[in-house]
Amino acid sequence: MRMTTLLVALWFGATSLAAVADDAALRDQSTSAGLKPVPYGLQPVSDNPLTREKIELGRMLFFDPRLSASGFISCNSCHNLGTGGDDNMPTSVGHGWQTGPRNSPTVLNAVFNAAQFWDGRAADLKEQAKGPVQAGVEMANTPEAVVVTLNSMPEYVERFGRAFPGEDDPVSFDNMAKAIEAFEVTLVTPNAPFDQWLEGNDGALSDKQKAGLGLFLDKGCAACHSGINFGGQDYYPFGLIKRPGADILPPEDKGRFQVTETASDEYVFRAAPLRNIALTAPYFHSGQIWDLEQAVAVMGTAQLGTELTDEEAATIAEFLRSLTGEQPVVEYPLLPVETAATPKPQL
Amino acid sequence: MRMTTLLVALWFGATSLAAVADDAALRDQSTSAGLKPVPYGLQPVSDNPLTREKIELGRMLFFDPRLSASGFISCNSCHNLGTGGDDNMPTSVGHGWQTGPRNSPTVLNAVFNAAQFWDGRAADLKEQAKGPVQAGVEMANTPEAVVVTLNSMPEYVERFGRAFPGEDDPVSFDNMAKAIEAFEVTLVTPNAPFDQWLEGNDGALSDKQKAGLGLFLDKGCAACHSGINFGGQDYYPFGLIKRPGADILPPEDKGRFQVTETASDEYVFRAAPLRNIALTAPYFHSGQIWDLEQAVAVMGTAQLGTELTDEEAATIAEFLRSLTGEQPVVEYPLLPVETAATPKPQL
Repeated sequence: MRMTTLLVALWFGATSLAAVADDAALRDQSTSAGLKPVPYGLQPVSDNPLTREKIELGRMLFFDPRLSASGFISCNSCHNLGTGGDDNMPTSVGHGWQTGPRNSPTVLNAVFNAAQFWDGRAADLKEQAKGPVQAGVEMANTPEAVVVTLNSMPEYVERFGRAFPGEDDPVSFDNMAKAIEAFEVTLVTPNAPFDQWLEGNDGALSDKQKAGLGLFLDKGCAACHSGINFGGQDYYPFGLIKRPGADILPPEDKGRFQVTETASDEYVFRAAPLRNIALTAPYFHSGQIWDLEQAVAVMGTAQLGTELTDEEAATIAEFLRSLTGEQPVVEYPLLPVETAATPKPQL
Repeated sequence: MRMTTLLVALWFGATSLAAVADDAALRDQSTSAGLKPVPYGLQPVSDNPLTREKIELGRMLFFDPRLSASGFISCNSCHNLGTGGDDNMPTSVGHGWQTGPRNSPTVLNAVFNAAQFWDGRAADLKEQAKGPVQAGVEMANTPEAVVVTLNSMPEYVERFGRAFPGEDDPVSFDNMAKAIEAFEVTLVTPNAPFDQWLEGNDGALSDKQKAGLGLFLDKGCAACHSGINFGGQDYYPFGLIKRPGADILPPEDKGRFQVTETASDEYVFRAAPLRNIALTAPYFHSGQIWDLEQAVAVMGTAQLGTELTDEEAATIAEFLRSLTGEQPVVEYPLLPVETAATPKPQL
């Protein structure tokens, strides 16, 4: 026992010294692998100029349960800004207490993803925002009913007018989605320890985290998980080397195949963004793995063909915890008051 | 037609002049009837010293869906601070998409009520807070499971320690309730137009609102609806003079009788507080009346034995709209991160 302890201590000592000495090299390697910090400031999005009025309106809509047929479920129900921008459930609860088919992805930093949803079926956040509002197992509403609801409240009518000035018909389902996108653009988490380190602060990562970053790069994780979001940029078969069990990869959910109907897209999913991963258990589209170390190990086996040791998985997980950034601080919105014309809750 | 219009105009003109002339008298009458403004500052509550740490903890707990068995329902789900402190539903959606037996009362200004719930079965807010957490049709949790959940998250353990310093066992179900009470003490809405008027600003109420206040006092509404909250102070039979229909007063809900088992308490309820009533439709414990004018008319018939004219009901309703105060502005809390020890969602 004493010998083992000594060896572990020596191993950590060696790792520590190596990491400290090699910060510059590790930083170069990270940059070469395409790892980037979360930028400050608002990311421009296509066909949707960002204004204060639009962002403010989007904040209201994001929290407004009256976008759902029941009047009970808002965007924030499943993309809870208090818990990492998701709901900490395997799959979300929706209309009628149904559960959805896939784990709710975080809304945080979603603007940096190349496309939205696990299968990338929405090109951007404004297209994404229309999905759950209409999904029968989520908010179960219709575009027509949403527009009636919004038009029934004078404060919304006025705010849509100011957010979309000069438009003939500002209160529309499309503009609802644009306003929500504008708010979501603000939901970014800069200044994570990794970002501070990448920008030159050697002390922002622990030695173990630096060792984890080294493993993350050397084992090939960054081949799929890179860019600002450490993922979210492209699509890969889940089980590239070895298909995981049916609990993790249920055979009935064929991923991107359902979007493209292309055989090579069977069980293909967008590489999960790893920002704030420590806040967003459970993991994978099936949401069955609660433990970050275990999720890392599954990735090693399934995607890299590598049986990571427990120590390696734990060290990589410790690095991933350095991707938790400053969470957005949001004022809870005061919502417009209903009128006699507002549709009643449909349970 | 022209004659009618003229008469209406004359009637309004007379009302207007009378109201302006009689502000001082109306103010005296209001004060004599026990109407009071919402005070600024924190209302002390029994056995629960208010500290910044406790209020801050309570804010987190109020918004934390992990107090429910499902991990989906928080206090704010039914007492939504964005929509007047309630949920704008006849009766609330709870665990398993069940609906509760009574309309969700607003949490705003609840600290000024003599007791909590429609039947007053909780003496104060800290007792109230324990109810929905355990109710099978609401959050469906147990005190034991809540304590396990809270203890599983180091940030909660630390915050309970700071909110309840010197206690041997700070993370308890009782202290959860005390922290929520402390936060709810902050949820008051001062400076409503009526309050401004009562404190001397003649222009804060419109002439119609002053006429409505006059009717409110002359017809006897203030006999039950007085104090800071315009209600919430005592218990009265619903249908004192004439029992409303079964849609409004379902025969199976005997109100305070279920608490006291005293025959004279059949269909007795706490007088509903009228603060922010314009934000909290639908009305009554059964939540079947969406229109404020109609609710006023029902009260006239059921409680006063008076068939109010449409004009009278509308004028009183217009006065009641002056009871909407400044809504609390709350920062949406960042909640503690879960650990492997956190109980999983129980759907």
